[in-house]
Formats: sequence, C-alpha cells, structure tokens
Amino acid sequence: MNTNLIETVNKLSQFEGSKDVCHEQINNDPMPSTTVLKEIVQLARSIFFPGYFGDSAVNAHTMMYHIGVNIDRLHSLLAQQIRAGICFNCTADYKERAELEHVALNKATEFILQMPSIREKLHTDVIAAYNGDPAAKSFGEVIFCYPSIRAISNYRIAHALLKLDVPLIPRIITEMAHSETGIDIHPGATIGEYFTIDHGTGVVIGETAVIGKNVKMYQGVTLGAKSFPLDKDGNPIKGINRHPNIGNNVIIYSNSTILGTIKVGDGAVVGGNLWIDVDVPEGAKLAQKKLKEDK
Amino acid sequence: MNTNLIETVNKLSQFEGSKDVCHEQINNDPMPSTTVLKEIVQLARSIFFPGYFGDSAVNAHTMMYHIGVNIDRLHSLLAQQIRAGICFNCTADYKERAELEHVALNKATEFILQMPSIREKLHTDVIAAYNGDPAAKSFGEVIFCYPSIRAISNYRIAHALLKLDVPLIPRIITEMAHSETGIDIHPGATIGEYFTIDHGTGVVIGETAVIGKNVKMYQGVTLGAKSFPLDKDGNPIKGINRHPNIGNNVIIYSNSTILGTIKVGDGAVVGGNLWIDVDVPEGAKLAQKKLKEDK
Amino acid sequence: MNTNLIETVNKLSQFEGSKDVCHEQINNDPMPSTTVLKEIVQLARSIFFPGYFGDSAVNAHTMMYHIGVNIDRLHSLLAQQIRAGICFNCTADYKERAELEHVALNKATEFILQMPSIREKLHTDVIAAYNGDPAAKSFGEVIFCYPSIRAISNYRIAHALLKLDVPLIPRIITEMAHSETGIDIHPGATIGEYFTIDHGTGVVIGETAVIGKNVKMYQGVTLGAKSFPLDKDGNPIKGINRHPNIGNNVIIYSNSTILGTIKVGDGAVVGGNLWIDVDVPEGAKLAQKKLKEDK
Amino acid sequence: MNTNLIETVNKLSQFEGSKDVCHEQINNDPMPSTTVLKEIVQLARSIFFPGYFGDSAVNAHTMMYHIGVNIDRLHSLLAQQIRAGICFNCTADYKERAELEHVALNKATEFILQMPSIREKLHTDVIAAYNGDPAAKSFGEVIFCYPSIRAISNYRIAHALLKLDVPLIPRIITEMAHSETGIDIHPGATIGEYFTIDHGTGVVIGETAVIGKNVKMYQGVTLGAKSFPLDKDGNPIKGINRHPNIGNNVIIYSNSTILGTIKVGDGAVVGGNLWIDVDVPEGAKLAQKKLKEDK
Amino acid sequence: MNTNLIETVNKLSQFEGSKDVCHEQINNDPMPSTTVLKEIVQLARSIFFPGYFGDSAVNAHTMMYHIGVNIDRLHSLLAQQIRAGICFNCTADYKERAELEHVALNKATEFILQMPSIREKLHTDVIAAYNGDPAAKSFGEVIFCYPSIRAISNYRIAHALLKLDVPLIPRIITEMAHSETGIDIHPGATIGEYFTIDHGTGVVIGETAVIGKNVKMYQGVTLGAKSFPLDKDGNPIKGINRHPNIGNNVIIYSNSTILGTIKVGDGAVVGGNLWIDVDVPEGAKLAQKKLKEDK
Amino acid sequence: MNTNLIETVNKLSQFEGSKDVCHEQINNDPMPSTTVLKEIVQLARSIFFPGYFGDSAVNAHTMMYHIGVNIDRLHSLLAQQIRAGICFNCTADYKERAELEHVALNKATEFILQMPSIREKLHTDVIAAYNGDPAAKSFGEVIFCYPSIRAISNYRIAHALLKLDVPLIPRIITEMAHSETGIDIHPGATIGEYFTIDHGTGVVIGETAVIGKNVKMYQGVTLGAKSFPLDKDGNPIKGINRHPNIGNNVIIYSNSTILGTIKVGDGAVVGGNLWIDVDVPEGAKLAQKKLKEDK
Repeated sequence: MNTNLIETVNKLSQFEGSKDVCHEQINNDPMPSTTVLKEIVQLARSIFFPGYFGDSAVNAHTMMYHIGVNIDRLHSLLAQQIRAGICFNCTADYKERAELEHVALNKATEFILQMPSIREKLHTDVIAAYNGDPAAKSFGEVIFCYPSIRAISNYRIAHALLKLDVPLIPRIITEMAHSETGIDIHPGATIGEYFTIDHGTGVVIGETAVIGKNVKMYQGVTLGAKSFPLDKDGNPIKGINRHPNIGNNVIIYSNSTILGTIKVGDGAVVGGNLWIDVDVPEGAKLAQKKLKEDK
Repeated sequence: MNTNLIETVNKLSQFEGSKDVCHEQINNDPMPSTTVLKEIVQLARSIFFPGYFGDSAVNAHTMMYHIGVNIDRLHSLLAQQIRAGICFNCTADYKERAELEHVALNKATEFILQMPSIREKLHTDVIAAYNGDPAAKSFGEVIFCYPSIRAISNYRIAHALLKLDVPLIPRIITEMAHSETGIDIHPGATIGEYFTIDHGTGVVIGETAVIGKNVKMYQGVTLGAKSFPLDKDGNPIKGINRHPNIGNNVIIYSNSTILGTIKVGDGAVVGGNLWIDVDVPEGAKLAQKKLKEDK
Repeated sequence: MNTNLIETVNKLSQFEGSKDVCHEQINNDPMPSTTVLKEIVQLARSIFFPGYFGDSAVNAHTMMYHIGVNIDRLHSLLAQQIRAGICFNCTADYKERAELEHVALNKATEFILQMPSIREKLHTDVIAAYNGDPAAKSFGEVIFCYPSIRAISNYRIAHALLKLDVPLIPRIITEMAHSETGIDIHPGATIGEYFTIDHGTGVVIGETAVIGKNVKMYQGVTLGAKSFPLDKDGNPIKGINRHPNIGNNVIIYSNSTILGTIKVGDGAVVGGNLWIDVDVPEGAKLAQKKLKEDK
Repeated sequence: MNTNLIETVNKLSQFEGSKDVCHEQINNDPMPSTTVLKEIVQLARSIFFPGYFGDSAVNAHTMMYHIGVNIDRLHSLLAQQIRAGICFNCTADYKERAELEHVALNKATEFILQMPSIREKLHTDVIAAYNGDPAAKSFGEVIFCYPSIRAISNYRIAHALLKLDVPLIPRIITEMAHSETGIDIHPGATIGEYFTIDHGTGVVIGETAVIGKNVKMYQGVTLGAKSFPLDKDGNPIKGINRHPNIGNNVIIYSNSTILGTIKVGDGAVVGGNLWIDVDVPEGAKLAQKKLKEDK
Repeated sequence: MNTNLIETVNKLSQFEGSKDVCHEQINNDPMPSTTVLKEIVQLARSIFFPGYFGDSAVNAHTMMYHIGVNIDRLHSLLAQQIRAGICFNCTADYKERAELEHVALNKATEFILQMPSIREKLHTDVIAAYNGDPAAKSFGEVIFCYPSIRAISNYRIAHALLKLDVPLIPRIITEMAHSETGIDIHPGATIGEYFTIDHGTGVVIGETAVIGKNVKMYQGVTLGAKSFPLDKDGNPIKGINRHPNIGNNVIIYSNSTILGTIKVGDGAVVGGNLWIDVDVPEGAKLAQKKLKEDK
Repeated sequence: MNTNLIETVNKLSQFEGSKDVCHEQINNDPMPSTTVLKEIVQLARSIFFPGYFGDSAVNAHTMMYHIGVNIDRLHSLLAQQIRAGICFNCTADYKERAELEHVALNKATEFILQMPSIREKLHTDVIAAYNGDPAAKSFGEVIFCYPSIRAISNYRIAHALLKLDVPLIPRIITEMAHSETGIDIHPGATIGEYFTIDHGTGVVIGETAVIGKNVKMYQGVTLGAKSFPLDKDGNPIKGINRHPNIGNNVIIYSNSTILGTIKVGDGAVVGGNLWIDVDVPEGAKLAQKKLKEDK
C-alpha cells in the first residue's frame, strides 16, 4: 500500500461528505441479511409445499415434526429480520429498541398465523399454472420447477408482511424473486387467486396494481404507471395510486404494456406487444394491428 | 412457541387436506437436487470446453486425466438424478425400483456416449456467436462469458436427456439457465447447428418449436403458441404441436413474437417488436411500421 | 466404467481435433475466477456504500479501518484478476509474465485512485433512482435493494477497468450484473451522471452507445446496433461505432428499441414499445400509434 | 506435467502391484463417510441432551418436533452408513446387496429403539462427572464442554452398534472421539453406569476390558493387553480376551497402566504412575513408591 | 418411520423425566457457540501476532486498519458470547436481560483494554519457547506452528475473561485448545511470564495451580489435586484450593505428576515420570530411581 | 467503539514496539496455509491409498484418471506451499523471488517422484499395524481409521520434504498429525520400515532420533533429549544430535521415556512407565520394578 492508496482510503473515509451513501450503525443494529431472507423463503416454501423443498423426506407420519421445526426456526429468523427492517432507518433509543424487538416478534407470529390461508391461495396458483400450460406434466413439476410459482410465492409472502406494516423486508423478498425469475411484482400489488404467469421474464407489476381472480399473463407484460403527479420540488409524489386494475378471467399476452389507473374489464383478452393506456371493456379482445412487409 | 403457533403447525400438518401441494415420500426416494444438477452441468461444461471451467489447469498432457475423472463423476451423479426424475411420481415397489436404478445407469451411459457429438454442435454455436457479435474478442471470451452459450449448453444437454425419455430433469436444467440468463428454451424444442442468441434476456422458445441451421435471435424474441386446443374439461391438451418452425439462415430481431404452427422460410429476416402469426415466405424481410410522432 | 465410456474419454481427450473449444494452460496461468470477481464487486460496493454491504457495522469511528482493510484486499484480488485477464490469451514467456504481474498491480492501483470519483457518480445515480420512483421510500432502500443500482455499479466499475485497457474482466463483471438483474450494459458504453433504470429486466445497452446526463430508462429498452459492416469474409467488423447517442434529460419508456448510430436529442421522451432507427429531435415526444380492436 | 510425472502416475496406477493399499470399488458402494458420521454423532448428542447441541432453541412445547426431525434424519443417515460398513469388504452380488440395504435399515431402527436407555446411562455419567470434579459448576457445563462426556457418548453409541454386529462404523466413531479428546475407548469394552474420566488425554481402554459401576479414571490411564497368544504364523490371535476387569467403585489415578486379564476388586484405589499386571484385591489402596532425591 | 420409532420419539420427548440432560430455552437465549468462539480466538491471535494468522498480508502501512477491523469484530462477537455465558443458567426476566446485554458489552470492552498487556506476556512465552527448544528455527516458526503457543494463548485469553467474572466461556476456550493440543490448562490457574511447554500432549494444570516466571514443562506433566475435602453429602467441595504452587525458573520433565497444595521451590528441576506430593525445596533436582532389569 | 478502544487499536498497531510478534509482509508473499496443507495431505493419502480417501470410487479402469488428476493438483498446490515456506523469512528481491518459484516447482516435482517409494514404506507400516494389533480386522480398517497410519503418513511426507530442504512446511505437516492423533514425530527423525504405534496419544519422537526396522511403540512413549549443550548466551545450540538410536525389532511399552544419545539394541523389549537414559543391550528385556502396597 503506497501513499496514494492511503490518501484514497482517507478520502473515502470522510463520513461527512458522503452521508447519503453511508449507513451509520448508531446502535449496532444489524442490516437485513439476504442470506437469512433466502433461508426464510426456503423455510416458507418447505412449509407451503411439504416434501418438495429442503433435504428431508416428508410423509404423513413425520410431517408434523418437520413443519413444527420449520415454523419454529422461521418464527425466530423472521422476527430477527423484521426487527432489522424496522430499525433500518430508526433512531430509537435503547428502551424503545427493546420494545421494537417485541413488536417484531408479534409481527412474525401474525405472519405465521396467516400461512394456512397463504397456502390455500398458492394452491390455486399451482392449479392455474398446471391447467394453463400444455407443457406441464404434473402439479409436482409445476411446484418444483416453474419460476412463476417461485415469484408468486415470494410475492404472497411479501404482500402479507407489507400488510403487517413491515418495512423494507417485503421489497427485498420480491427483488430476490425478480433476480431469479425476471418477474418483478411489487409487494404492494393486490393479486387474486388462480394467478399464473407463463415464462415470466420481464413481467412488471406495479405497487398499486390490482389483479382479479383467474388472471393469466405471459412474459414481458407490464402493469405500470403512466405518469406521476409531481410535488412542488418537481419530484414524484410517493405512494399515490397510479397502476391498472385488472378484472377477473383476463388474459394478457406477451410484451404488452398496460399503463395508468385504467380498468381492464372481466374476461378481456389483451394481445401481445400492445401499448394500452385507456380502459378496456369487459370481454374485449385486443390484438396488434397486422404488420406489413417493409421493402 | 405459543398455543396459536402450535395450532398453526397442526393445521398445516393435515396431510389429507393438502395432498395436491405435498409430496409424500413413500419409499424415501430422494427428490431431484438442484445442487447436484448444477454440479452435473458444471462437469458437462468442463468436458465440453476443457480448461475453461473447473479449477484445474488442463493441457495436452493432463487432459485425459481430467476428462476421465469428470466423466466418472458425471456418470455417477447423472444416474442418481435420472433415477430421482423417474421416481418423482412413481409408485414402483422395492424390486421394480432396483430395476429403475439399472435403467437410470444405462440412460446416463447413453448420454455420455452422445457427448462428443453434443460438443461438435456446441462448437458450431460458439463460432456463430463469435461471428455474429462485433463486440466478441475471441472464442475464449464467448465460451467463458456469453450467457447464450450457457443457455444453449444447458438446452443441448437437456434435449439429449429428454430424447432418452428422462422425465423432469431436462426441464430443471433449462430452468437453471432461464434463471441465470433470462433465456427460456424448452428442452423439447429442436434446434440446428450454428445457433446464436445475442443478449438473450426474455427469449422464449416453446416445447414444439423447430429451428433450422444458422439461426440468430436477439433478446426478447418469443417462439410461442397461439392458442391451444382444449379438452372436454376446458383445459389445454398436453403435448400437442403448437409452435413455429423456423428455417435455415433466419435472423429474428429483438422483442418480436412469432406464434403458432407457422413456418418462417429459409433466409427470412424478421425485424424487431413484431407480432407474427402467419407464415413468412423464404427470404422475406419484415419490419415494423414506422411510428409517427404523437401530440 | 465400461469400454464404451473409456472410448468416449479418449475421443473427448483428443486435443488436436478440438482446439477451438479447449483452453490449454501453457504456463499454468489461472483463469479469471467468477468467485473472486464476485468478492471484488462486493468489496467495491462496501467501499462505495459503507455500512450497507459486508457483515460489519460501520460508523464514523470505524469507517477508516473498514475502508482500509477493504481497499487492501480489493487491491490484491483485483491485481490478481487483472493479470488473469491479461494472460487469458497471451503467450508471454517467463520474464514477460513477471512484467505483466507488475502491470496488473499498477492497473489495480489506478482503479482504486478513481474510486472516489466513481462513488460520486454512483451517488448521483442513487439520487436519480430515488427521485424517479414514487415507490422508493429512502436512499437506503434504493442502495440496498434496487437492481438498477447493482447493474450501474457493476457497469461503472467495469467501464473504469476497460478504460485502463484491462481485457475480459470488465465484460465478466457486467455479465454478472446481467445475470442477476436482466440488465445488460456493455462496459464500453459511455454513461453520464444521474442515470437510472426502472425495473430493468431486458435492458440492453451496446458497446458504443453514449448516454448523457439525467437519463431514465424502463425495462426492456434496447440501445442496439442496426446492422454491422462486414469484412471481406462476410463477418462483422469488430469494434466499429454502431450504437445510438442519447442526449441529456431523456426518458425512454419500456420495451422500446433504438437502433444504429442515431442521435436522440436532449429532453426527448420516447414512448414504450417503439422501434426507432432515425434521429429523434430535441424535446420530441414519441408515442406508439393507437391500437384498434381486432375481433 | 513432464514425462517424469507421467511415469510416476503410471507407476502409482498399477493396480496389481499395490492391491493391499488400494480399495477397489466393485459395485460403486460408497465408503463410510466421516463427515456423515460426525453429523450422526451430532444428531445423537442433540437427542440425548436436547437444547445443548444443534442450532435450535428447544423447550417443552417444541421438543417433540425437534426430536422427531432429528430421529428421522438420524435413521436415514445411520442406515446409509451401516450399509457402507457392511459392504466395506463384502463381495455380495446385486440382489444380496439389496438385502443388505434392508438389514442396515433394521439395524438403524434397532439402534434408535435403544436410545432412551443409552440416554439414561449417559445421565448417570453426567452426574458422576459433576460430583467428581470440584471445578464443575453445573450439569450444563459438564454436558456442554467436558471432553469425557463426548468420549463416553461416542463410546456408548459405538458399543450399541457393535452389539448389533455393525462392522467398522463403531471403531470410526470412537476414533473420532479419540482424535478430539485423546481418550481411546475401544467400542468392544463393557462399561457400567456412573463412569467418569477426568481430563482424559492419553486414556486407553482395550477391546475386552470390563469396567463396573461408578468407576473414575484420570488422564493417561491404560487398561491394556500384556501379551497376545500368537498363531502358528507368529501373529497375534484376533479377538481373544486380554484386558483387565475393573470392579465397582474403583478410582485409578493418572498415568497408571493396568495390563492383562487381571481383576481389580471393588472399591480399590490405584495411585498414579503405576504399572500393574497382577490382581488387585477389593478395597486395596496402591500408591507409587516414594522417590528419593537423585544428585 | 414406523410405530416403534414414533414411540421412541415420544419417550425421548418427555421433558419432565429428563430435565437434568435437557436445556430448556426459556427466553430464546442462544447457547454459547463454539464456531463463534473459534472465530474469537482466531481474531485475538491475529491481533496478538499480526501477519501470522488471518488471510491478510499486514505491513506497517496497513496494520492499523487490520487491527481496527479485527478489534471491532472481536468486540461485537465477544459481547455476544459473554452474554450467552451469563444467560446459560440465568432466569432473569426481560428487563434484567437487557441489563445483562449492557454488562456483557462492558466486559468485552474491559477484555480488549487488556489485550496489549496480554500480548506482552505472550511475547515472553514465544521467547521462552524459542530459547528452550533446539529444534526451533525462528520466532515465526514458534508462533505459527507450536501447539504450546496456541494452548497458552487460549489460556491467557480465558484467564482474563475469568478474572472479569465471565462464566462458562473461559472453560470452553481452554477446552478448545485441549482438544487441539492435548494440553489442558484450567482458566483459573495463575501462570507467570516466559512460560513454555514442550510437545505438551497430556499436560494438565488444575484450577488453583500457581506457576511462577520462566517455568518449562514437558509433555504429560500433571499439576493436580491430591484429594478433595467432601461436603456433608460426600461430594467434593467446589472451588477450594487444591493444586501445587510452582516457583520461578522451575523445569518439570515429561510425565511427572505433582499433586496437592505443595510448593515446588524456585529453580527446582523435577525429573520425568515422578509422582510428587510433598514440597520440593528450592534448587532441588529430583530424578526417578534407576530401574533394574527384570527377569 | 469508544475512545478507549481506539487507543487500544493504536497501541496494538505500533509496529516498532512489537516486531518480534508481527510478521511484516514485505512483498506480499502469502503465508503457508494450513487449509491448503490439509488438502495436500488428503491428496497424498488418496494417492497412497487409492479408493480409501477422497469422494471418488476408484477401480482398475479409472485409477489412472484419478491418480493423474490428484498428482496434477498436488504438484501445483505443493509448489505454492513450498514457495511460501521458503519465503517465510526471506528478504529476496523481485528477481530472486521469481527464481525461488522455479526452485519450489522443482522441489514439488522431486517429491512426487519419490511417492512410489514412500507408498512402499507405508505399505509395510500397514502390515505392521495389522499384525501387531489383535483388534485389527483388515488392512482396510487399519488404513481407514488407525491414527498411527495418519501420523506415520504425515511424518513420511514431511521427512521427504525436509530432505529436499523445504523449510517450515514439514513441521506444519507433522503438527497437523500431532493435533489429530496426539502423536508428535519431528520430521527430522529417521524411521525404518514396518513401523507401528498402538493407540499413540502422547508419543514424542525427537528431531535427531533414529529408529530401525520393525519397531513397535505404545502410547505415551518419548524418545527425547536429555540435556542440550548451551551456547555462550546460555541458550541451547540448535540442531545438534541429542536423541536415542533405536535398533531393529524393538518393542517399547506405554509411557516409557528414553532420553539422550543412547542406543537401544536390536530386539530389545522396553517395559512401560520406564525412564531410560543409558544404553540398552541387544535383546534386553526391561521392566518396571514391582510396586508395593502403600497404606
């Protein structure tokens, strides 16, 4: 290490000048850990789909043992990560912090109490994926290797946590699925039962999107915002409703983009490669204009 | 763990009510392991492209040792995973199972006997990628870091296994590449030599697609199904031919979607962002209609 | 292992017949290691954004220690990988090789000296991402979980290395981000400050693209080549300028494709799903032609 | 790799000339795995002493889950290792081998059925260690960090397996404890309840030794063979009784050596650094002759 | 899992009957972790002997960075383990527990403040080992590979923690060295500067032993208790003084045993294989009586 | 981190005051790595005893592949560690260093050329261990789990490296076995064929000891130095002959200590717990004096 490098160390260590990009650990609160969150998602999957994930052979005799142990561990890890999410930006003092630990433990318990109903929803998603794909050979194949099931599992976990007012953690969980599957579902979106996405790469579902029951999408579909109202500084106002509302029994083909607070009516079929920013009536069938040969 | 959590454990452990989403291990058959399959693909890559992958320096003197050891290990791991694939849904009794182990071993041997010819095909794919990309500096760079080579390697491995009637495993192998590269090639597709995909994210190639020699694709291209014949319950009929047939020397630009059992003739060039569901004649050059300024 | 397998080993071990796909290690030079490069990127991130990455709690008192140690390790690992990149295709003899080690060490030092200014640029990218996304809750959330920050960090690292004439390594670093985020930025591209990409899956930015300040893109946008001049053998000429030049303050909506050496003027807004291969004037607002309903 | 090294490879690869030191895998039977056996011992310890080992917090509500899962896994791993032990030297054909798998599974079950009574014995050993050591602060400290408890646990596990006619595996398990603690107890020895060893390094207890109840030993004590009857080739006859029989309530101080098929009577106290090869009467107190100063 | 195994699970899960061997986690307090304690010892060694341990190259320019980071991490891990030690047997309620966390942090700080003086003592031990062993080639060799240095380092760390009233953890730290080196030094012993042990296997130094300056021991030496006063239940009274006091400049040769609260005077030389339970005068030279040939 | 801790960091970072205990990395030479040395020993064992160690099933068809790959890797790792040993205390400049790399490579080659003859010697040690222990069931059991075979393997490897003038590394290799088995054989000792040690804990064999053929030892035996000539500063003179010479066909029973440059004649039998510092004639049988009862 020569003098130049030491100068660079000093330059990079000036806390004051770089406070936007530094995260000072005031109370030694640990950051959320993606490694632990991966284990949490893996535990949740092995509880939702016993026998498919994890290294244990499960059968009717041993299922309770496995689920008991997995829930015990999930509870403890999730409470720890929820607390890390809560303290990510907090300035609580020592005693308030002890309180936050209690709050985190309760939110973890609340989440686990919802797991049976989350499993029921995921069950419908598996049925939808199986029925919707002629290449699917069995429920088992869908559960074990379809990226859409992984993306939707992470979304349903993250959405439940968001509803429990857990900060940051839900977004990390959906980004983990985004990275693995190319499917980017914001945890704030509201999605009904029997939801399926075929192939999935490039799908984007925005924070305030609402999706009905029995909706099917293909790769590259975006449910996005058209424009955002700006605040007086010219920056987008946070959290405002800005995404589409999709009815029941809708199919949206690949690479179509649906933008803004529009409504796509029940039973509509949206063809591929479309750009839609107006309401689509119930039962409508939209398709791209025929191309013509060029030169 | 309080009473509520224990109740939740009990609720989630009721095998009867959740049999669709559980995988009961009747005979302690292990599930396919993505960790082992990753090692299998890594071994295959280090055999196809000696010296590029794995932690060993290979040269003319030591190549036989390395390939010998890698094939020995590949044989054993692959037989184990093929058996796991066969038993994923089987209900064979003890003796039939011993037979299945024998079957799996033979299929693993069959696969290895095909490795020299798979390597020849991959060699042509490397040439096509190098020739097709002005940014490619050397064959080595293409082999070592192009995602298309990884996706096509996994596809060619998976396709050979599918042809040997190995269930489930081929799909897992192509999904592994899908997750890493965003390129989703169904193992059932038939793809000729000198195949290359540039960038690749979002590419989808369906189960019954047929692609000729010397075809080049860009990111976001879909070779998909237009619609599926339904059975009497309203569900898609499995396994029916439903994807395009692409001729030789075809180029398909980014984000175009080609759907249904249509034929794209030899030498055709399909421009980007197109939606095509009719035959494309030999030598045709299709391009998107010019846009016009809005507002 | 039976006779057939041994024959296959022999067939695959014939170095002569397969020299295009083999990498002979003449001098035991190690290949570049993606594992080490991942650690390098992780170290760089923990230096750019202290306290967010790595397992240590950083505060004003300890920051210098952590940055010092991280830079010390980064320096050593980077020098090692730069040398591996330089020697990937070299045939230098023993003494020239010792010289290359020295060269690699100097390039690693040069890179580190640029880290303060790279951090400043990344700081502007964080601000742009935060301001541009109504769903972003804090700078911390953007730094910690936005895939675009990861893709742009890898790009800015890789670009600096490319400018230092480091071969191969820059491309591997951007491909690592490509695999994780679906965003494919060639290290050769030139990108100004305050750059942000929303969602990002499917974005492709080519080798000779130039992007001004304060540009925002959405998922699926391609800045690609339209066609490449061929050499006398019919292969593309390497390294020639072939990608767009994007001005300042431009927005490009999802899935649009901009091709060739065209110019998109300052302040232009390019709508989604467009295919553009001609210059776009300053301040222009392009949108897709309205679709019509197709029975 | 030069010619010399290749010749060395060839020399070392001649199977015929080195058959004593090679282990040919006729049927691809895996070798016993010390990694798996370490996990087995760890699982057994976490079942014998719930809450002390393993990474899970156990309490009255969750104990059954944890023990259920641990026994499930122990059963499967132990059956696998027992089979590896049985097949270490076997030449069984394919069908006999399937039979051996069944035998191994039954032996693993038998072992688990004995675990409650092994735990009772270990409980007495913990009490003896606590009562016998003025430095011991609590049962918990004894269980968690006393090497004698680890050595005796491994011995009691190994002894039960030896009684079930499991070959090889018991010896590996006691050697694992030997390596960690310096205490070498042959699995064939017979040891009563309330057994304790203080410090322990260098203790040797031979294959045919018998030890009563409530015996305490210190470091460096040997219960060995004095001489072995030779067979007609001049080699020791295998498996013959050749070690001491120690009564109840005996104390043996450090570094004493007791050899041959002698009897040490109930309540005897053997001082340190002694060499004993004749019977010791009940209640005797043996001590080393006083030393004298040596110029 | 058959009925028998499930019965065994139930039998082993009865908390009441087995409370001596179970550790119930009332408040989810984590157990001390030997993995973390190994890292703690490794960190301490890399601080005491910079450049010898850990994977970083240290030099005069970077030493402060490395020591700063290592102390930062040591502080945090040690506080965590001290708390685990304190709570091993505690029944504190929620608020008392928060207090204990504070106490643990302070004890960790206290320990670190003593590290410079511990390093000074270890420095003298290195000198003593180098001077005392004709086979030692350099200080570096002694530091890097002599087991006695490892055992004495662990002892000096553990002793300092014991003096800070940290329960359990000191004993685990010395047992770690016992397992690796066969040298068993109780953390309660008091040992002066320039202490060295040659070879070391089998050495035992008891809880209340006191050792002066410049003492050298060989393998197999015991400084033990002769007998323990019993309490009214017939069990040894805990913690009473019962071990020898060794003066300055004493040498004790291999396998000798020194027992009870005796005094070995300054400058004494104790020969090998002796059993000593009376005071040894200053400057005395004790040797074993000559053997005579037997038979 | 408070002010006190930062002061402690500063105190511990003063390079000048602590130069005896610091290892300054002048040229970034890596330290020898015990992790790599463990892999080296493991590779050597899998070459000496094919099929017993490593995770591969070896048979007559595949042995050459496995040995070839293992020797290739052993060569490379060993050269690296030999260089680290040579540079541990060296002050060579850049060009001399390049030379040292060449020297290290040659020494690694020399070592491998000796492996066939080392294997022959180890073969005789296995025979001796099997014949000498009535509890040994097969050669395989001896090779796979006897600690003496591990200790002697490490010694024979280390001795060959020492003879090649490799510094430091040989001692680390024997200390690794010392830690695992409690058997401490200095790499400088000279040991003939058919050597065996039963149980072994506490055995010490000094640097200049010479042991003939067919010698058997038990646990706790020391072949040590009696006294060392001092230099003018009062410190032992390094490297002088000071250990016993043991003839052929000698047996030494447990815990005996043989000291100084004495000669134990061929065929002698040394009983246990003896202290010997005079020559022992050929064929002599020494035994401990009978003890007498002490009230």
